[in-house]
Amino acid sequence: MTDQTPVAGRTADLMMALGREARAAARIVALADTETKSRALRAAARVMTARTPEILAANARDLDAARAAGRPAAFLDRLALDAKRVGAIATSLDEIADLPDPVGAVMAEWTRPNGLVIARTRVPLGVVGIIFESRPNVTADAGGLCLKSGNAAILRAGSESIHSAGAIHACLVAGLAEAGLPAAAITLVPTIDREAVGLMLQGLGGAIDVIVPRGGKSLVARVQDEARVPVFAHLEGICHAYVDRDADADKAVAIVLNGKLRRTGVCGATECLLVDRAAPAGVLVRLVTALLDAGCEVRGDAETAAVDRRVRPAAADDYGREFLDTIIAVKVVDGVGAAITHIARYGSQHTDAIITENVATAERFTREVDSAIVLVNASTQFADGGEFGFGAEIGIATGKMHARGPVGVEQLTSFKYVVRGTGQVRPG
Amino acid sequence: MTDQTPVAGRTADLMMALGREARAAARIVALADTETKSRALRAAARVMTARTPEILAANARDLDAARAAGRPAAFLDRLALDAKRVGAIATSLDEIADLPDPVGAVMAEWTRPNGLVIARTRVPLGVVGIIFESRPNVTADAGGLCLKSGNAAILRAGSESIHSAGAIHACLVAGLAEAGLPAAAITLVPTIDREAVGLMLQGLGGAIDVIVPRGGKSLVARVQDEARVPVFAHLEGICHAYVDRDADADKAVAIVLNGKLRRTGVCGATECLLVDRAAPAGVLVRLVTALLDAGCEVRGDAETAAVDRRVRPAAADDYGREFLDTIIAVKVVDGVGAAITHIARYGSQHTDAIITENVATAERFTREVDSAIVLVNASTQFADGGEFGFGAEIGIATGKMHARGPVGVEQLTSFKYVVRGTGQVRPG
Repeated sequence: MTDQTPVAGRTADLMMALGREARAAARIVALADTETKSRALRAAARVMTARTPEILAANARDLDAARAAGRPAAFLDRLALDAKRVGAIATSLDEIADLPDPVGAVMAEWTRPNGLVIARTRVPLGVVGIIFESRPNVTADAGGLCLKSGNAAILRAGSESIHSAGAIHACLVAGLAEAGLPAAAITLVPTIDREAVGLMLQGLGGAIDVIVPRGGKSLVARVQDEARVPVFAHLEGICHAYVDRDADADKAVAIVLNGKLRRTGVCGATECLLVDRAAPAGVLVRLVTALLDAGCEVRGDAETAAVDRRVRPAAADDYGREFLDTIIAVKVVDGVGAAITHIARYGSQHTDAIITENVATAERFTREVDSAIVLVNASTQFADGGEFGFGAEIGIATGKMHARGPVGVEQLTSFKYVVRGTGQVRPG
Repeated sequence: MTDQTPVAGRTADLMMALGREARAAARIVALADTETKSRALRAAARVMTARTPEILAANARDLDAARAAGRPAAFLDRLALDAKRVGAIATSLDEIADLPDPVGAVMAEWTRPNGLVIARTRVPLGVVGIIFESRPNVTADAGGLCLKSGNAAILRAGSESIHSAGAIHACLVAGLAEAGLPAAAITLVPTIDREAVGLMLQGLGGAIDVIVPRGGKSLVARVQDEARVPVFAHLEGICHAYVDRDADADKAVAIVLNGKLRRTGVCGATECLLVDRAAPAGVLVRLVTALLDAGCEVRGDAETAAVDRRVRPAAADDYGREFLDTIIAVKVVDGVGAAITHIARYGSQHTDAIITENVATAERFTREVDSAIVLVNASTQFADGGEFGFGAEIGIATGKMHARGPVGVEQLTSFKYVVRGTGQVRPG
């Protein structure tokens, strides 16, 4: 009889069951103490190291399929594991174990005139759904961060990395078992049926509290569009660096080059350089020349093009574009006000920087630029949970609800108010 | 030509235009300084006092219509204003002006080893949509709290209170004008077309960041069900008081009576009393007798019924029911573990209390009960932003995203990271 059930129905039944099991497990990991969670994380890391050959064999299956499907080199690189990468994934789990446990931390405490002591205390969110594509390390990183923060995780790997993710997930489950925690605390969706994603975005009947997509723009766009539960994500990182009239030219050149070129494929890469028309003579030339000499394509407005014949004219849609490549858009603007206006129009509320020695100008920029991260005299490539001291991040969010900027273990928590009295009743 | 446009289309066009104007105004109030916002709030309060006759006349129109429609007395009472109530609304606006400005407050600041100084700084959320029913004071309270927190507000009053809301809203607009702030910072939806609510729940094309419903369970349920934007709300306040074996009997009686009977119509009213089977002889009797003697109907299990012949047998659905009346469900349970299990099953994650002198038992209860507010030895009626010291609240939220518990001005903010450097670039 079961075999005659339509596949779609089977996937829905499977996913709803996974949701219920994750919800039940969430209650257990929410109450697990720090030591138990750490034991699970460290055991998982140990098992992962020991099982490196199995993980690499699973990864080879995924790689073979990806090559057969004609996937590009960048895709294969994101997917590929070697012993060193597996070691790094295991090390990350140990590092997550070393982080302070956010659960139970008192965020604020105050005493009311009637003697009530009110404490705002961190609690886990519940069940986190993670939908990702090809990077196998997301399995361990996201699963580990969710466990550390007392949440259950439902991980949905892309079909291209399903074997790699499965092998890594097995190590996490072994770690959970060693600590006496339920396997459903970190669930890997066992089907590659695409319907599973849609079901997760609907929340699995209330079982999922938040969705974190990890992948390209089309995945994030779909998740943001369809999800009926909160989403922690950024669609694009269209990061700007604005070089003000009061900028230190040496700092400006160093920050812009690093912001654009340190890694061009990350969401914190600078995609657009804005230069104050009143900047000292030569600053624009130095910036543009340094970028070009470093091998970066420069797409500029007329004033920028006048600097160097290698500059290509910027098309209208080069502003507000996430190149994720060795390409930068450049524009000359009339001061900090115009820079703020440009960023409001073309930015993605992710990360934007000003280079200036003028404190008042810097204050205006940080106040008026409506982005998750606003930097003064530093590279946009610092947009990273590790660089913020969060230890690790599950992603970067540009929304304003709950989590904004790097999403680390603290951002994966909510809070409750614990109110301690001595018999108080409310008058009136 | 315009007159031939279908009404639905007109409402949609109107609402989208309101959304765009509110979004533009949000940027202005987000950057307005404390003094400007205070001037608007105090001016609105002053105008409101001066216009008391006009407000009462508008209210009389609403009351006449409500009486003609045969609305019950409780409804009329919620709707009715008099000079004293108008004065209280104006005073609330002055009190909101007196609150500390949350915008720009540094929530946390730390320095990284590379010298970067990272500050997590409060910023407004953007545009808050408030959908409410008959209480005219919501217009001023919600509008005032949104302005104080640097947000624009789009207020949708119930058709029954539209004239009262309009008269109060006019005072807010006068206050905004006096401070040089745009009228669209606090918008009252000028149509009673019910389609407007559905459009707001869709977010007005991205113009609304969060919805706050203020009203009965059916309104909140509809909002939670249909909204495509985040919602700060609670559906029900099914609050429990658990009297433990180690409770002080005098405190227990005082707390339970206050929790149930101080006001029965508020969301923090105790709806269910759980009594430890191992509580000292006489505690259950005292509790039940005191409730009955105070005029409260007691619906109990068999053990409770044995205490007093006035106790009525509880039906299965009396547990988990929000009576909002002088009725309480009572059950005898086997200790704190059973109380926690009962609350997990029947509660609404709003507010629950334990009465015990045992610190370890209290700690277990506060840790394991998954509610926004968990009290020890205090009345559930303290579930209130004012009682928490927040000054005022726009509502109470039971979700775990962003705001939880009383939603005051701080909970109406998000944050950004301001990172100050001296030329740092990211290595590697």
